[in-house]
Amino acid sequence: MKILVVNGPNLNMLGIREPEKYGTGSLSDIEKELYAYSFELGIDIETFQSNSEGEIIDKIQKTIGSKTVGTFDGILINAGGYTHTSVAIRDAISAVGLPCVEVHMTNIHAREEFRHKSLIAPVCIGQISGFGKESYKLGLKALHDCLKK
Amino acid sequence: MKILVVNGPNLNMLGIREPEKYGTGSLSDIEKELYAYSFELGIDIETFQSNSEGEIIDKIQKTIGSKTVGTFDGILINAGGYTHTSVAIRDAISAVGLPCVEVHMTNIHAREEFRHKSLIAPVCIGQISGFGKESYKLGLKALHDCLKK
Amino acid sequence: MKILVVNGPNLNMLGIREPEKYGTGSLSDIEKELYAYSFELGIDIETFQSNSEGEIIDKIQKTIGSKTVGTFDGILINAGGYTHTSVAIRDAISAVGLPCVEVHMTNIHAREEFRHKSLIAPVCIGQISGFGKESYKLGLKALHDCLKK
Amino acid sequence: MKILVVNGPNLNMLGIREPEKYGTGSLSDIEKELYAYSFELGIDIETFQSNSEGEIIDKIQKTIGSKTVGTFDGILINAGGYTHTSVAIRDAISAVGLPCVEVHMTNIHAREEFRHKSLIAPVCIGQISGFGKESYKLGLKALHDCLKK
Amino acid sequence: MKILVVNGPNLNMLGIREPEKYGTGSLSDIEKELYAYSFELGIDIETFQSNSEGEIIDKIQKTIGSKTVGTFDGILINAGGYTHTSVAIRDAISAVGLPCVEVHMTNIHAREEFRHKSLIAPVCIGQISGFGKESYKLGLKALHDCLKK
Amino acid sequence: MKILVVNGPNLNMLGIREPEKYGTGSLSDIEKELYAYSFELGIDIETFQSNSEGEIIDKIQKTIGSKTVGTFDGILINAGGYTHTSVAIRDAISAVGLPCVEVHMTNIHAREEFRHKSLIAPVCIGQISGFGKESYKLGLKALHDCLKK
Amino acid sequence: MKILVVNGPNLNMLGIREPEKYGTGSLSDIEKELYAYSFELGIDIETFQSNSEGEIIDKIQKTIGSKTVGTFDGILINAGGYTHTSVAIRDAISAVGLPCVEVHMTNIHAREEFRHKSLIAPVCIGQISGFGKESYKLGLKALHDCLKK
Amino acid sequence: MKILVVNGPNLNMLGIREPEKYGTGSLSDIEKELYAYSFELGIDIETFQSNSEGEIIDKIQKTIGSKTVGTFDGILINAGGYTHTSVAIRDAISAVGLPCVEVHMTNIHAREEFRHKSLIAPVCIGQISGFGKESYKLGLKALHDCLKK
Amino acid sequence: MKILVVNGPNLNMLGIREPEKYGTGSLSDIEKELYAYSFELGIDIETFQSNSEGEIIDKIQKTIGSKTVGTFDGILINAGGYTHTSVAIRDAISAVGLPCVEVHMTNIHAREEFRHKSLIAPVCIGQISGFGKESYKLGLKALHDCLKK
Amino acid sequence: MKILVVNGPNLNMLGIREPEKYGTGSLSDIEKELYAYSFELGIDIETFQSNSEGEIIDKIQKTIGSKTVGTFDGILINAGGYTHTSVAIRDAISAVGLPCVEVHMTNIHAREEFRHKSLIAPVCIGQISGFGKESYKLGLKALHDCLKK
Amino acid sequence: MKILVVNGPNLNMLGIREPEKYGTGSLSDIEKELYAYSFELGIDIETFQSNSEGEIIDKIQKTIGSKTVGTFDGILINAGGYTHTSVAIRDAISAVGLPCVEVHMTNIHAREEFRHKSLIAPVCIGQISGFGKESYKLGLKALHDCLKK
Amino acid sequence: MKILVVNGPNLNMLGIREPEKYGTGSLSDIEKELYAYSFELGIDIETFQSNSEGEIIDKIQKTIGSKTVGTFDGILINAGGYTHTSVAIRDAISAVGLPCVEVHMTNIHAREEFRHKSLIAPVCIGQISGFGKESYKLGLKALHDCLKK
Repeated sequence: MKILVVNGPNLNMLGIREPEKYGTGSLSDIEKELYAYSFELGIDIETFQSNSEGEIIDKIQKTIGSKTVGTFDGILINAGGYTHTSVAIRDAISAVGLPCVEVHMTNIHAREEFRHKSLIAPVCIGQISGFGKESYKLGLKALHDCLKK
Repeated sequence: MKILVVNGPNLNMLGIREPEKYGTGSLSDIEKELYAYSFELGIDIETFQSNSEGEIIDKIQKTIGSKTVGTFDGILINAGGYTHTSVAIRDAISAVGLPCVEVHMTNIHAREEFRHKSLIAPVCIGQISGFGKESYKLGLKALHDCLKK
Repeated sequence: MKILVVNGPNLNMLGIREPEKYGTGSLSDIEKELYAYSFELGIDIETFQSNSEGEIIDKIQKTIGSKTVGTFDGILINAGGYTHTSVAIRDAISAVGLPCVEVHMTNIHAREEFRHKSLIAPVCIGQISGFGKESYKLGLKALHDCLKK
Repeated sequence: MKILVVNGPNLNMLGIREPEKYGTGSLSDIEKELYAYSFELGIDIETFQSNSEGEIIDKIQKTIGSKTVGTFDGILINAGGYTHTSVAIRDAISAVGLPCVEVHMTNIHAREEFRHKSLIAPVCIGQISGFGKESYKLGLKALHDCLKK
Repeated sequence: MKILVVNGPNLNMLGIREPEKYGTGSLSDIEKELYAYSFELGIDIETFQSNSEGEIIDKIQKTIGSKTVGTFDGILINAGGYTHTSVAIRDAISAVGLPCVEVHMTNIHAREEFRHKSLIAPVCIGQISGFGKESYKLGLKALHDCLKK
Repeated sequence: MKILVVNGPNLNMLGIREPEKYGTGSLSDIEKELYAYSFELGIDIETFQSNSEGEIIDKIQKTIGSKTVGTFDGILINAGGYTHTSVAIRDAISAVGLPCVEVHMTNIHAREEFRHKSLIAPVCIGQISGFGKESYKLGLKALHDCLKK
Repeated sequence: MKILVVNGPNLNMLGIREPEKYGTGSLSDIEKELYAYSFELGIDIETFQSNSEGEIIDKIQKTIGSKTVGTFDGILINAGGYTHTSVAIRDAISAVGLPCVEVHMTNIHAREEFRHKSLIAPVCIGQISGFGKESYKLGLKALHDCLKK
Repeated sequence: MKILVVNGPNLNMLGIREPEKYGTGSLSDIEKELYAYSFELGIDIETFQSNSEGEIIDKIQKTIGSKTVGTFDGILINAGGYTHTSVAIRDAISAVGLPCVEVHMTNIHAREEFRHKSLIAPVCIGQISGFGKESYKLGLKALHDCLKK
Repeated sequence: MKILVVNGPNLNMLGIREPEKYGTGSLSDIEKELYAYSFELGIDIETFQSNSEGEIIDKIQKTIGSKTVGTFDGILINAGGYTHTSVAIRDAISAVGLPCVEVHMTNIHAREEFRHKSLIAPVCIGQISGFGKESYKLGLKALHDCLKK
Repeated sequence: MKILVVNGPNLNMLGIREPEKYGTGSLSDIEKELYAYSFELGIDIETFQSNSEGEIIDKIQKTIGSKTVGTFDGILINAGGYTHTSVAIRDAISAVGLPCVEVHMTNIHAREEFRHKSLIAPVCIGQISGFGKESYKLGLKALHDCLKK
Repeated sequence: MKILVVNGPNLNMLGIREPEKYGTGSLSDIEKELYAYSFELGIDIETFQSNSEGEIIDKIQKTIGSKTVGTFDGILINAGGYTHTSVAIRDAISAVGLPCVEVHMTNIHAREEFRHKSLIAPVCIGQISGFGKESYKLGLKALHDCLKK
Repeated sequence: MKILVVNGPNLNMLGIREPEKYGTGSLSDIEKELYAYSFELGIDIETFQSNSEGEIIDKIQKTIGSKTVGTFDGILINAGGYTHTSVAIRDAISAVGLPCVEVHMTNIHAREEFRHKSLIAPVCIGQISGFGKESYKLGLKALHDCLKK
């Protein structure tokens, strides 16, 4: 079982700026914890971050790989600011047809009005938001459990 | 560490009707799994279900108990249909001031428009929606981890 | 064939106040007429009124009873003010899955804007509004005819 | 007592197309049942169908006839698609000032958003929607009972 | 100089019903006064009333007649209920390109919200509303004065 | 019979600027024509212009004068830009309770969206818009005719 | 003269939590002050608090009592979170037809958007909001003065 | 294979007025080109134009003819101004259930806001707008290709 | 302790017109009662009325006077029609930073939609509306009590 | 005559996934058909696909090339998910000023609400949507015909 | 070259109150700096402040003076709270037809929703907001540069 | 002091197309003027243009550089079409936490409705729009002055 972990724009800035909102850990710290946790769960993960909507779509499309090798079984995504504006990422998720879980470190429902609506959520299994870096682990566990069934 | 697990209207119908949407497990099955899981996490939980907005508020208010005994440390809530209409439950959560996590079995962001907005989410740490009965366990874990910090 | 007749908040005030809007008959007068009419139609009815959203949900849930005895075949409901605000009653009707008919004594489409929208109507067979106490009889007949088919 | 039964656009297609939505009976079948039922109720009816907004208005205006003969006592109307768009039919009903009952075979409150709003309902006694061809009989009964008073 | 005076749906009911709103004069009374007044102004008018949107469009289109005879110089229109719903009448007025004045007997800006907006006004020279039958005379005078310039 | 003619902000600029929109006549030209026309109609008028909302209200209030002398019988108003924003002028018109006619030189229904709505219209007899300086004369005539009745 | 003082959801938490918003006095402190103040005004009051929408409606309905004894003359209500969501409480107030005054401790017009709109205000004499516990006294005085007239 | 080509209100004015918007060709020129083109495609067409919503519905209904002769295989429609206001034409297209293609000579998405929304498009295979008279040919080709499959 | 009592547009008309809405007392009657009441409360008041938004702002600004003499301690304001449209008066209240109480004689929440929203309320301590001239006294008392603390 | 054919995000997935919605042909199949068809029309095309908004803009900008060589005469674009969100692509089309035709394989007007609005359509000649891969050919033909004129 | 510098309501309070938002400099300090800066730019300025919408309009109108002397070449305006509510000031700027630059000390796009929209901006060359007293200098420079061209 | 000057999509087309809207100068001309002006102000600037949202975010993130060398002190941005759609660029600006000034060559408040709202403005010091290439210089000056303080 292999999961692609996608991080969208500005998540590479974690730990560098705005620690009061996003904590002091860097994205690489989070990814390390996720690798450890995936080992625990007995699954493989691959991490990916980009500030570019197009590159994120490219990467998501590659999850279905060739017919024989290298494909993924699910996607864990924190699309950052694209969550609220990208029909194209939504369509990419629909297109590959893999189970997808959306995560957010902050509680997007408690922030500015324009962050309440996710264009991506309707094509995901579910959404987890508000638990800092734990959101990723909860999301990975949720995806793992769904794939198991 | 003690957590109150609140279930709102119609969640007592789980497993009886609409299994294609909510699965075949009953609320009592879910609660049993939660008790087992809470044991694993080394915490206490108390479960509560009511179809009445007023009784849910009463129960939430009691979490702060007397100054000396019986209080709770956090709340896990699936407010069902009241999620989208109850300013009063929102105010109760604000009033007791305990960390609260909101969960939903279905992905509310993929259902009717009026279910996308939660009045309760802005006063919670975070929201988990879409993972069936796993949503509760993920929520309990999330709350447990937050309280630990 | 057995029908539950549910009356929501303030319908117990019929005949006491605002007769120019709701007529001079009390709820008990209406219920008596309904019992007589149900006898004519050859069906059983049970009447229920509550001002509490939670109690209405409790009662609706009980319509599916145990697997062997006491169940109902349909629901006739005038949810009063909850018509426009209760996602929870809507969910209860969906959950029990019985045919349901919504009635209103006044023509809700000719009153304040906020009364035009019924949250309950989309999960009912149909809606009858505007005919005073006759709305109940028309609703009972409609439900009876649907169940017959 | 004489009632005009008005059917708007596309209701002449009943039974020919989309039977899963509107049943297999034709408009003429419904009208026959209504004649039989009106006989039972001891009233006269006249039926009318048109796809033209203007012709419907013409017909409604004629219900008030001359001062001495041929007038109607009430109107039963299923305005079809004009329900949601015709201020002019609404005004015609207001202008003749006869008691009017609005009926729909499908539950318009459970269909597309633009069908929820009826421009005609506010000038009618009431609205009945969702009971297939029974909606007409229920409407005729409702109108009959109102006129009796 | 020749003016077409168009009256839309239900204006043929003037004087018969709702005199408290529209006065006791019939449409023919108004038309007589208009003929007299047009004589005074030294112009010709032709009056036309229809409850049918299509016939109104047909009539408006004919104002431009053949290249040589029988054309009109302007249009005075009270489109009744079609004022608020007819893109097609608006387009007809645009298509013939004649100066057009919109009139209403009642003050549409003081009635229901949906009567405040005229789809026709933006393609007219101006709008006169609220002066009963005088609205027509004021409109005729306004149109006459514009055409003179 | 005495009429107050009120002109709001920027109407003192008529003829000086934007002649393509408002014509080349000055406000004083219009007022002269109105005086001549009022003489024709056998009534008195008094003209007033101010750029100040407060002064317009002051003036309107004075129309009811003392109980014995100097009062007005009606108001003709072009409130200019205050048409769309002044609840206070609307209230002043309501307060004095005199018949009022609203006029506009341009067709406000054919301009920017925010000019379509008049806060003043609902407390006036009617509205005339789009006929340049003729709007005033039409308005005076309309008001004169209403007062006569 | 007897007044029912109704407090809605979470007002029993006054003084326990969020003192920076609601002050340190408990509901019972406020009620004591109100009893003292009612004595001063020469009237009787009865206080009531519930977190349940249904119980509040039950209580309001009882204000009209039997035809002979125990009735109330007015209602003072702080409906808390139900202020913004309860059509049913609004209908109860309309149904009993007693003069009602709405009070709020905080200035609801300066808080979240969804708190600006009161469903109850339109059926009350007036609304007082923003003066902490003084709001109750001002409300009682206002109601007392109205009833005197 | 036989196609009905429907033209709605004001399209009979093509070539007479507003050539800068709609070109100088008349509707009959367009129809001639369409006949020639249909010959090329090896199909039959019948053309129809009406300014009346009701007549357009009548015509659409007749496409399904009797069970044995004279039916059509598809509809090409430019509903003109009814595009944006006619639920009834939409319902007629749904009712006959034939493949339908919507065309517009102008680019409706680049005109007034109220022309952006087509009530008819959701029940058609597709929409072509903006190519002048070519829109019809493109639409005919599109319909022909769909029917072939 | 000195309070400025500001009355906005049209409040100088009290008692002269619309007594059924505003009572028969004049503004000067109300002011007299307020002076008497302020004497009772042991405070000074100064009353001010203007129909001009600018003058009201000028007056509010003067409440902070020079650094040494003549300043006010609070403001009681009934901004009349400016309540709903004046950002500038709101800003003036913010700018002087004095405690301010907003009052209305009528219940603005029970009137036209556009009167429900007060631009001024969010910068005031609180709002009192609906109690006729008593609203002023209640407001004065409320302000007095706040200033005492 | 040379046309740039632009395909936006996820159109490179055609034929791989969701064949029930987009057919079984790959983008390369479509491009092959387009090359063949362009040969038939006697024009050149160049095809381009990218998931990146920026690259699409870069490519569009290059259509105007240098003043002497390599330029394009028109653009055929299916902007996929960017259709509904990209002001920047719209501006690029405006900036190069070439005739542009927008195409969609599915009928965007029959899908989710957020797909009904195209930001790009207002700067194109026209829009074709709903005909699967035929949409491209129809679009190419439309563009070719426009350029010819 | 002569510029009128207009300051609207409450800007005369600068430096007295709310220094954390608007700085400690008074309006007169700002005006002094502007006079110095205008000297530097080689232009004349005249400063004007009023809390009255009407006086601001009067002043703007006077910028075009008589045909021969005393006129201005441009306007620099900070309309304060009138920015968001005054159609009349907008119309005055349009009427005089002089180049106008709008400035704000605070960033109005980062404040309350109702401050985001400027009614004045669409009739100005441009808008500068957010730079404290520097906004005025930047605006003067911008206006100076535009006038030079 | 070092400033990053960011230009978004299509600004590289300046001077090539649409000179009537954006002038005849190229982006490189503007950048040259800015370098000269920065020299005058005694600061360094670096210019950057991209059509890609992702690349713009990458560049903004790099402004905070390593802890020791190469960082910037402020950002001047014209985000072009991304101004109205990019939550991600807004978040990037927030993340780096540098003072930022937003500029536009055209007056965005006077263009299409969708250009009035800037998602970026709330996280900037201020916004300057409408002065052609001067907007950049004014912005640089504004940023320079802010940084000096």
